[in-house]
Amino acid sequence: MKKVYLDYGATTPVDKDVLNEILPFFHERFGNASSIHSYGKEAFDAVENAREKVSDIINCKANEIVFTSGGTESDNLAIKGVAYINKDKRKTKGNHIITSAIEHPAVLETCRHLEKQGFNVKYLPVDKYGIVNTKDLEDAISANTFLVTIMYANNEIGTVEPIEELGKITKEHNVLFHTDAVQAITKISIDVIKLNIDLLSVSAHKIYGPKGTGALYVKNGIKLEPTAHGGGHEKGLRSSTLNTPGIVGIGKACEIGKKRMKKDTFYMKILRDKLIKNVLEIEESYLNGHPEKRLANNAHFRFTAVEGESLNLMLDDKGIAAATGSACSSKKLQTSHVLLAIGVNPKEAHGSIRFTLGKYTSKEEIEYVSDALPEIVKRLRKMSPLWNR
Amino acid sequence: MKKVYLDYGATTPVDKDVLNEILPFFHERFGNASSIHSYGKEAFDAVENAREKVSDIINCKANEIVFTSGGTESDNLAIKGVAYINKDKRKTKGNHIITSAIEHPAVLETCRHLEKQGFNVKYLPVDKYGIVNTKDLEDAISANTFLVTIMYANNEIGTVEPIEELGKITKEHNVLFHTDAVQAITKISIDVIKLNIDLLSVSAHKIYGPKGTGALYVKNGIKLEPTAHGGGHEKGLRSSTLNTPGIVGIGKACEIGKKRMKKDTFYMKILRDKLIKNVLEIEESYLNGHPEKRLANNAHFRFTAVEGESLNLMLDDKGIAAATGSACSSKKLQTSHVLLAIGVNPKEAHGSIRFTLGKYTSKEEIEYVSDALPEIVKRLRKMSPLWNR
Repeated sequence: MKKVYLDYGATTPVDKDVLNEILPFFHERFGNASSIHSYGKEAFDAVENAREKVSDIINCKANEIVFTSGGTESDNLAIKGVAYINKDKRKTKGNHIITSAIEHPAVLETCRHLEKQGFNVKYLPVDKYGIVNTKDLEDAISANTFLVTIMYANNEIGTVEPIEELGKITKEHNVLFHTDAVQAITKISIDVIKLNIDLLSVSAHKIYGPKGTGALYVKNGIKLEPTAHGGGHEKGLRSSTLNTPGIVGIGKACEIGKKRMKKDTFYMKILRDKLIKNVLEIEESYLNGHPEKRLANNAHFRFTAVEGESLNLMLDDKGIAAATGSACSSKKLQTSHVLLAIGVNPKEAHGSIRFTLGKYTSKEEIEYVSDALPEIVKRLRKMSPLWNR
Repeated sequence: MKKVYLDYGATTPVDKDVLNEILPFFHERFGNASSIHSYGKEAFDAVENAREKVSDIINCKANEIVFTSGGTESDNLAIKGVAYINKDKRKTKGNHIITSAIEHPAVLETCRHLEKQGFNVKYLPVDKYGIVNTKDLEDAISANTFLVTIMYANNEIGTVEPIEELGKITKEHNVLFHTDAVQAITKISIDVIKLNIDLLSVSAHKIYGPKGTGALYVKNGIKLEPTAHGGGHEKGLRSSTLNTPGIVGIGKACEIGKKRMKKDTFYMKILRDKLIKNVLEIEESYLNGHPEKRLANNAHFRFTAVEGESLNLMLDDKGIAAATGSACSSKKLQTSHVLLAIGVNPKEAHGSIRFTLGKYTSKEEIEYVSDALPEIVKRLRKMSPLWNR
């Protein structure tokens, strides 16, 4: 059976060039980067080389990169790290965090956890496209606000937030600005200095790097309370033996991602737009998210009287891999908080599906999906009591 | 130059059979284990298969294994997880944790962090061999004690703790028992049921598995507060996209480790004892740790009037990789808390070196080190103002 993977937003295959770079660090160059002998030195050098590469793609200094186990840990470390540092001082200086209603669970659940610890969190609403209103942010900031955390681009509907404007506002008010750039990195050119970003989360496995590795950019001068205590690795922010192969992998993935960004996003956008055009020809189908301000690889639809889970399963039967929400929540059958936030009613939200393209996506694959989808939607509607046409 | 790696306690090369098992999960079988399509299913099945293998080596149920990013995270999750669950209840029910003075920093620093949060921690002393006195544990347990965390075997001097006796005591007093088994696993046969262990930490890269992966055994029924919040993976205990290659790797490493345990420890012990015998022929050299109750692969020495760092560097010049302390603290030049705890004076503690053997260690390598060491010690003593013979 033909296999078409259109779930690059959930995870990506490791690029062969990345894999080749990683491989020697499993068996031959396996030293512990903290050891002082030659094996350790070799690993240490590889780690520092990767640090340069990660810093390069967001225009920060190498010593501002902390390696983590993934995007979730990066988000947790950034938000809790800022919240818990001088917690007692916070109580007098401010205990207010601002985020958006459509964040990834790694941010949302961390914020909810902090609420239980006595922090005060404001969840900014978004418009029907998923965009945060900069005026809302300005109004929400008070003397008590110490952190704003708003994602760069949404993982479900692909909407890109006005990060530059948000960064300006946080800077003006002297509030720290964290952004989850897990989906944006390598798809959008990011300059943390120009954008006034203080903390930024990255994940390797979304950009053709290995699973189990992430990075957090922490602007020099910002103090964080570590989330993992131990041997004091990564300037004491993240204790754990350094995962050399993973770190080498995220470095190489960033290097390749930066180099190929223009070309890859250009072609993905063409294919993505072709898919959108084809799909919207289906009766009562709609595009979720912003028509232009969206990730080059994201196409997110809803279909009246179609159940997303069933649609996904029938696509899978045809060898097509897509997603109903984010992979994180796909097994929970919860209504997407993102779709609810943009005003889609719960019934319609369940009729949604996300296609995310990658650099390996071909024209033929898009045609295959475009051909298969109308038939599947038709079959599902035939079975649906909600479809009476 | 000949290269002799005798720092298996710091990290190990990934076993070729483990690597072969991992490889397909980078590029071909790369799905996100949370996705509901065929790619996701394939990853999910691989993860669950690995869970079985990890559970098998410690005789627990597969659903009692939580995958983490390594030993440090496992220790943090176990200790903080128990401490923070129902924190308010704890305050009335008990806020007392018991550990030992020679724990790995992942345990010690976590305990110190908890002290800052209002918890009360007792650090049990050890005898001159590094062994915790069971009577001391019994005396330390009070109605306020909710957790005992004592390592299975020490990472520096290799001393094996009386886990069975300690487990009996904690069970009698209805106190949870966590053990860091990072160094012990695959070297000592562990049965968590027989030993009354409630929580146990494992790391992949110490047992010929990949860096960046660990596991925590959590006995069914024990509730933990998660350390990372997000998508709710691993029964909500550890949010983050599952690191399929890493997880497959730790599974295979446990499978091989269990199968080869008897044979590997038998041969390592013979070589280790040969090394000990040869080294102790050097004038004023001493073995740290217990003569018998020690890990099969550990030989830890101190030499009067010799500086461990210099010794390590000169060994490195001969192609021999050893360690002065644990890799974690090797760059900090701190006096080992373990050696201080067993009563070695600070000056002598700095003259210590650890050799840790592995399953790839050969007789020739041990002979090479045995030949090289006396000469190096002699040269260092010649330069030392403390050596006047």
